[in-house]
Amino acid sequence: MQVNNINYRTIWYDADNESVRIIDQRYLPFKFIIEDINSLEDMLVAIFDMHLRGAGLIGAAAAWGMYLAVKESQSYEFIESSANKLLQTRPTAVNLQAAIDKMLPKLKEEKEHNRLDLAFKLAQEISDYDADSCKRIGEHGYEIIKEIQNKKAGERVNILTHCNAGWLAFVDYGSALSPIYEAFNSGIDIHVYVDETRPRNQGARLTAWELGMQNIPHTLIADNVGGHLMQNGKVDMVIVGADRVAANGDVANKIGTYLKALAAYDNNVPFYVAFPSTTLDKTIENGIRDIPIEERSGEEVLFMDGLYKEKEVRVRIAPEFTTAVNYGFDVTPARLVSGYITEEGTEFNNL
Amino acid sequence: MQVNNINYRTIWYDADNESVRIIDQRYLPFKFIIEDINSLEDMLVAIFDMHLRGAGLIGAAAAWGMYLAVKESQSYEFIESSANKLLQTRPTAVNLQAAIDKMLPKLKEEKEHNRLDLAFKLAQEISDYDADSCKRIGEHGYEIIKEIQNKKAGERVNILTHCNAGWLAFVDYGSALSPIYEAFNSGIDIHVYVDETRPRNQGARLTAWELGMQNIPHTLIADNVGGHLMQNGKVDMVIVGADRVAANGDVANKIGTYLKALAAYDNNVPFYVAFPSTTLDKTIENGIRDIPIEERSGEEVLFMDGLYKEKEVRVRIAPEFTTAVNYGFDVTPARLVSGYITEEGTEFNNL
Repeated sequence: MQVNNINYRTIWYDADNESVRIIDQRYLPFKFIIEDINSLEDMLVAIFDMHLRGAGLIGAAAAWGMYLAVKESQSYEFIESSANKLLQTRPTAVNLQAAIDKMLPKLKEEKEHNRLDLAFKLAQEISDYDADSCKRIGEHGYEIIKEIQNKKAGERVNILTHCNAGWLAFVDYGSALSPIYEAFNSGIDIHVYVDETRPRNQGARLTAWELGMQNIPHTLIADNVGGHLMQNGKVDMVIVGADRVAANGDVANKIGTYLKALAAYDNNVPFYVAFPSTTLDKTIENGIRDIPIEERSGEEVLFMDGLYKEKEVRVRIAPEFTTAVNYGFDVTPARLVSGYITEEGTEFNNL
Repeated sequence: MQVNNINYRTIWYDADNESVRIIDQRYLPFKFIIEDINSLEDMLVAIFDMHLRGAGLIGAAAAWGMYLAVKESQSYEFIESSANKLLQTRPTAVNLQAAIDKMLPKLKEEKEHNRLDLAFKLAQEISDYDADSCKRIGEHGYEIIKEIQNKKAGERVNILTHCNAGWLAFVDYGSALSPIYEAFNSGIDIHVYVDETRPRNQGARLTAWELGMQNIPHTLIADNVGGHLMQNGKVDMVIVGADRVAANGDVANKIGTYLKALAAYDNNVPFYVAFPSTTLDKTIENGIRDIPIEERSGEEVLFMDGLYKEKEVRVRIAPEFTTAVNYGFDVTPARLVSGYITEEGTEFNNL
């Protein structure tokens, strides 16, 4: 996607420098910084310290981490221990595990002197597959937006999204935002309400930045506002990403998604979930009952990062004596979901 | 209520200094500052620049503003023009209008040399009436909490609240928080989940501070979290205040209240609204259709205030090119409300 009118992916191989490059997302939206990743060690730090994040992107980063490991040594012993180090950076990331599972056995079978070429080829394949899946999610989601536009006789389509499920979370295009990019590029008049997404503010920091960089009209709102907008006919569709989807259709996604799904249902606003089919976890029968919810530090609630005098600082926003709890995700029951958009197409729910 | 173990109201007459005193709420929770209000002009500034806020407190402040005006001149012409100045500070504040409506005709009827005594008496009465109403809201709400405690066989009662409807919004006790204070002081084991309440953070700044000062166990949460907590049985009751209640029972309150009401309803958690009966506006038949919703500056969404190096600063939290909308309130339909708690008692809804 575009950044200051130049096309980027979130991760790529740079032939000139013989390095892997990533967008260091920690500084967005205030600074756009590209980081050279020259070694397995660099990649371990980048994943662990969240220079990059997002399901699809973590998987691609692990694949390129494997390539950098093989560059250091082609011995299988070293490659395997490197894989284990990568797995430990974000133990719950499903795509990280999938990338390692795909690469490790193939590298083992290959002769040592061919392993570097193979690792490069596989890392590139994993990146391309992620980008391609997201592109197809966009094409399928576009059909839904197009239909809404038709019903509105060409009037502006207003879409609400929560958190960041854009290209910054994948190699390119994104999941929830991919249909929006596809629709905008096809000339549909579109406008996006962006939930700021407390406590980490991925909406305010990443989604707003992504949309602005593609010149897509968008408006930032507090997470409290979506219900009021839907009650007043200002939202035509809600679209969000997913961290995990259970066999029964329950959706784990960024905390607060459930509240927006309730408001959408209460106001007959269609509520879509977009994700690569790898996000579907068939081993989990009942999402609300069985998907574990990560509890994070209360500091993310008690403090807020922002720009003060051209510098990013962290400010305290609550009394010293107050503590906070911080659940990363919630689970939206399938009964509130209008449809699931994957690279394979859209599966509609009978609501 | 207690601040550092001393009893305060939010506004009071100080005989030693012959002045009116208020807690300057702009600096909470980081600094506790008492301000002397020595003239009508001081009070106009205090109301307009929001040194104080909250339905009940604005009414009492207007009454004390009238007293200070009469102190300056007992001529009815001056008193009437002072009343008009007070009315212009917060034109939509119902209680401000009510205080003026109560005082102005009585002052007109009274002889000039008795007007100062009368103004003092009326201002004191209005303050006491507000505090007393809130105390009684607490007593009625206590009954509901007590019943929940009984059902839980004495286990800790968890209550979720949104925004600040505590004593800082009134002269004393508060509306939504008054039952919590009553229950805590009666020995009920109680814990409060405090929505931070973006964008102005009245939960994080004021409600958390109030509760902490009374030593009431509380936990700050992002506004996104309530649905997840209710889905997992962690909330026994939701209680919020109200800015206006329509004849049909629809409730205008701080933006985001509607989302919590939806989650409460979806999870069979009782949802109560507490307010002095003056908040009921019988001229409004249908709340969702007819209550006007204040739109405020988007700056409140794009920036955040907090403490940095012992100083309160304002940080930018979104890209420069992003704009925001900021609705102050939303309307919760009566069908989601379990009951209305006023000084007169509790009216239960048949859900």
